Amino acid sequence: MTNSSLDYLFNPRSIAIVGVSDDSSKFNPGRGFMQSLIDLGFKGNIYPVNSNGEEVLGSKIYPSMKDVPDEIDYVISAIPAQYTSQLVADCASKGVKIIHLFAAGFSEIEDEKGGQLESEIVEAARKDGMRIIGPNCMGVYYPKTGLSFTPDSPKRSGFSKQSGPFGLIAQSGGNCTYCIREATTRGIYFSKAINYGNAADINETDLLEYLTRDPETKTIAAYIEGVKDGSRFIKVLREATRVKPVIIFKAGTTEAGTRAAASHTSAIAGSNTIWGSLLKQTGAIQVHNIEEMVDIALLFSCISPPKGKNAAVIGVGGGASVQAADDCSNAGLTLPMLPPQIRQKLKDIYAPEAGDTGRIFKNPIDMFPFTGSVMLLDAIKIIADWDQVDLLIIHLAFDSMPLIDKQDAVRPYIKSILNLKNIINKPIVVALHSQATDEARELASEAYVELHKAGFPVYPSTSRAASAINKLIQYHEWHRRSKQDAS
Amino acid sequence: MTNSSLDYLFNPRSIAIVGVSDDSSKFNPGRGFMQSLIDLGFKGNIYPVNSNGEEVLGSKIYPSMKDVPDEIDYVISAIPAQYTSQLVADCASKGVKIIHLFAAGFSEIEDEKGGQLESEIVEAARKDGMRIIGPNCMGVYYPKTGLSFTPDSPKRSGFSKQSGPFGLIAQSGGNCTYCIREATTRGIYFSKAINYGNAADINETDLLEYLTRDPETKTIAAYIEGVKDGSRFIKVLREATRVKPVIIFKAGTTEAGTRAAASHTSAIAGSNTIWGSLLKQTGAIQVHNIEEMVDIALLFSCISPPKGKNAAVIGVGGGASVQAADDCSNAGLTLPMLPPQIRQKLKDIYAPEAGDTGRIFKNPIDMFPFTGSVMLLDAIKIIADWDQVDLLIIHLAFDSMPLIDKQDAVRPYIKSILNLKNIINKPIVVALHSQATDEARELASEAYVELHKAGFPVYPSTSRAASAINKLIQYHEWHRRSKQDAS
Repeated sequence: MTNSSLDYLFNPRSIAIVGVSDDSSKFNPGRGFMQSLIDLGFKGNIYPVNSNGEEVLGSKIYPSMKDVPDEIDYVISAIPAQYTSQLVADCASKGVKIIHLFAAGFSEIEDEKGGQLESEIVEAARKDGMRIIGPNCMGVYYPKTGLSFTPDSPKRSGFSKQSGPFGLIAQSGGNCTYCIREATTRGIYFSKAINYGNAADINETDLLEYLTRDPETKTIAAYIEGVKDGSRFIKVLREATRVKPVIIFKAGTTEAGTRAAASHTSAIAGSNTIWGSLLKQTGAIQVHNIEEMVDIALLFSCISPPKGKNAAVIGVGGGASVQAADDCSNAGLTLPMLPPQIRQKLKDIYAPEAGDTGRIFKNPIDMFPFTGSVMLLDAIKIIADWDQVDLLIIHLAFDSMPLIDKQDAVRPYIKSILNLKNIINKPIVVALHSQATDEARELASEAYVELHKAGFPVYPSTSRAASAINKLIQYHEWHRRSKQDAS
Repeated sequence: MTNSSLDYLFNPRSIAIVGVSDDSSKFNPGRGFMQSLIDLGFKGNIYPVNSNGEEVLGSKIYPSMKDVPDEIDYVISAIPAQYTSQLVADCASKGVKIIHLFAAGFSEIEDEKGGQLESEIVEAARKDGMRIIGPNCMGVYYPKTGLSFTPDSPKRSGFSKQSGPFGLIAQSGGNCTYCIREATTRGIYFSKAINYGNAADINETDLLEYLTRDPETKTIAAYIEGVKDGSRFIKVLREATRVKPVIIFKAGTTEAGTRAAASHTSAIAGSNTIWGSLLKQTGAIQVHNIEEMVDIALLFSCISPPKGKNAAVIGVGGGASVQAADDCSNAGLTLPMLPPQIRQKLKDIYAPEAGDTGRIFKNPIDMFPFTGSVMLLDAIKIIADWDQVDLLIIHLAFDSMPLIDKQDAVRPYIKSILNLKNIINKPIVVALHSQATDEARELASEAYVELHKAGFPVYPSTSRAASAINKLIQYHEWHRRSKQDAS
C-alpha cells in the first residue's frame, strides 16, 4: 500500500454496511451491497449494521457501529440522507478511513438544505481524517480485493472476478454499471472502477490522479457530468495523458442534458464546444457514449498502433462492402486500391471456385462466402503482405446472406480469422454486423466469445470500428507530435 | 392486374427455374430459389429445368424450357452468364414475360465482354416483349403471391409470409435481404421488395414508379448504388414523394465506396454532397445505412406525425437520462422544461415511495425503477397531458441497473408502456438500450416482441430514436411548406 489517503478505498481490511435489512421480502440496498461483496469474494470481514434484525446472509447484525467487535476501515452507508450526520460521528469514534454514501438527497436536490448537509458531513469527516465517496453513488468495483456493487445470481448479471487493464471513473452509477458490463462482455476487464456521484469529497480529479499512478491501470476512461475545479482537472488530465491513454465522455453538454446533470449529481456542466477544444489540448480522447468509450478502450488493450491510416477492408457481400468502404472513408481512414499484381493473385485463388471474375477485388475486397478456411486465409495473407496496408478490417454481415445456410458460411469464416492471430503481424479489427434475426444473434454471440478469447477487438458495425481506429490513430499522432515539440 | 409490363414481375402464374440441381450434397442456387418459393407458399406451378437430373424437391426436372408442358410467365435463371443468350432465345419461343437473371459476370466485371453480353441480352429480350430483372440479383420478395429468395428452415431464417405497407427497392441482394430481416424483426412487413442488381432492363426508376402507383405500398425505401438516368430518376422521385414517403439510402458516396459500387453492380455513383442536396429538393428522406432506413419506415407505420419538436423524455436512471437529453437535443428535438405545477404533481406521486425529492423531474424525467405499473402510468399521463409536449420518448437502459433484479424492474415498466397504447393520444416512441449481457438481451427480446405486437416503434438507442423522429418531423414540415408554396 502506498501512503495515499485513497488506498483504503480499494484495500479495506474490513467493511461495515449500515442499513442492512434481514427482511428478504423487500428490496434493500444494504443487503444488495452485502451480497455483492460476498459474490465477488471479498476476503476481509463484513459486518452488517442495523438497529433491527438478528442475522442476514449468514452474518450477525450489529445494532450500531460501536457494537462491531473489530476495527472498521470502510463503511457503506445505505441509510437515508437525514441519518448521515450521526453515522459520520459514529465512524469517527470507530477510526473508520472511508465512508461510502449511497443515499441521494444532498446537493443534487433543489432544496438548499441538501447542499448544506453535504458540506457539514464532509467537514466533519475530514476533521477526523476520514474520506467520503459520494454521496449518491454506488462506490467501488475492484475485482482484485473483491469490492463490488452488484450481486451475481441467476437472475442478475454480476461483475466479473477477473482483473484487467481498464480503469474507470464514472459520475453516474448506471453508466458505471453499464460500462463494466459492456466492457467485460466484449473481453476487457477492469483494474478498478469507481462511481463517485456528487463528488462531495473524493472527486473525479482525485481519482484521475490516483489511476494515473496506479500500475494496475493501463487505460483510463471517465464519464463526467461536471468537474469541481476546472483548472486542476485540466492540469491533472494533462499529466495523465502523458502517462497512459485517457478516454473522456463528458455528458450534459446540451441545455437539457445540463439540466439533467444538475439534478442528477449537482454537476455544473459546460457546452460541448468548450469541452471539445479543452480536451483536444490535453491529448485525451473524447467520446460521446459508453459504447464508444469501450470501442476505444478495446483497441488499446487488443492491438498495437497502426503505422498509418491505410486500411484493407475485407468482407462478404457487395452491398456490405460498399457500405464498409463508405463507413471507413467517412471515419477518416484511407482504402488504397490494390495494385494489379495483388488483384491477380487473389483472382488466381478465387476464380476457379467462384467462377466469377467480377468480384470486388480492389479494396474493399469481397470474399466469397463458400470458400474454405484455407483459401480465405491465403487471400488475407496476400493482402496483409502488401506494404501499403497498415491494418485489416475484416467484417461479416450476418443477415445479409440470402439462399445459403448462414452457419455454413459463418463458422469457417470465423475460424479463418482466428487462424490469422499468429500469422499476420499487422493490426486486425473485426466487425460482426447486420444482425436482425435470432439465428444471426446466436451465431454472432458464439463468434464474439471465440474472438474475444483470442484477443481480437470486435465491433457491431464497420462504422464504429472505423471511427474507433481513426481516433486511435489521431491519438498516437497527437502524442508523437507533442513529444517532438517538447524535445 | 393493371396493364403495366411489370405486373408479371409480381403476379406470375407459373415459374420455371433453370439450373436446378438434384444433388443435395452441394450448394445450388437454383434449388435454393425453388425451396424459397415452396417455403413461402407460391401458389402457381414451379418447373425445375436442368439438362441433368430426374427429380428435385418432389418435382420432375425438365431437360429444357421447351419440354415444360405449360405456359411460363416467369423464369429464374440460375445458370452462368455465358449460357444466358441461349436461355433468352428459349424463353422467347416459350412466350415468357419476365426473366430474372441471378448470375453475375455481366457489366459489373472489368472485361468489357460482360457489358456487351448484357446489352445483347436486353436487346433480344425486349424485341420479344420480355422484361429482365438483373442480372446479378436475387429478384423479388412478394409475400402476397409467395415470391421469395430465401429458404426457411431451422438452419435458415426465411422471410415472413405476412404482408405489410413497406415497399423496398434495393440494388444489393445482401442489403435487400438484411433490410427485410431487420424490418420484419422490428415489426414492419413488406408489400414488395425487389433486388434489381445491374439494372440492365428494369431499373430503380421503373420500380420507383411502380411502387408509387402500387396501392399496397404506403412507404417506399430504396437502396441505390447508382442510377441509370439521373434526370428521369429525380423527376419520378419528385412525383413519388408527393404521393407517399420515400426513404433513400444512396451508397457509394466516397471514392472507395464508388469503386466498390462499380465492381458490385456497375453503378456510377456520385458524391454525398451532390446526392444530399438533390434528395433534399425532392422531399425524399436521406439515410446512410439500412438500420436508419428501417428506423424511419417504422415511424411512418407506427405513429401519427407529431405536432412539433417538443419531446418529453422519460426513463430510468440519472446517467441514462443525461445521455438521452443530450442525444435528443443533438438530434434536433427540444425538451421543454416541465413547469412547477406538473413537477409538483409528479413529486406527489413519487415522493412517498422513493423518499427522494432530488430526482430528475424537469425533462428529461427519471422514473423510479421500483414503481408499480399504475404509478408509472399515472406519471406518464400527467406529462403527456401538458400541452407543450408533442411526443413522448420512453426509454430503458437494461444493463445500467446495479443492485436490483433487472427482471423485477423491466417487466412492470414494459407492461406500463403497453398500457399506454389506448390512453395517450400523442406519439410514443420507445428506446430499449444499453444491452450488454445475455440476461439483458433476452429480457429486451421478450419486450421487443410485445411492444412490436402492440404497434410501438422500438429503437436500440435514444440517439437513433431521436434522429428518426427529427427526420420525420422535417419531412412533414417540408411537405407542408411545399404544399403552401404550391397553393
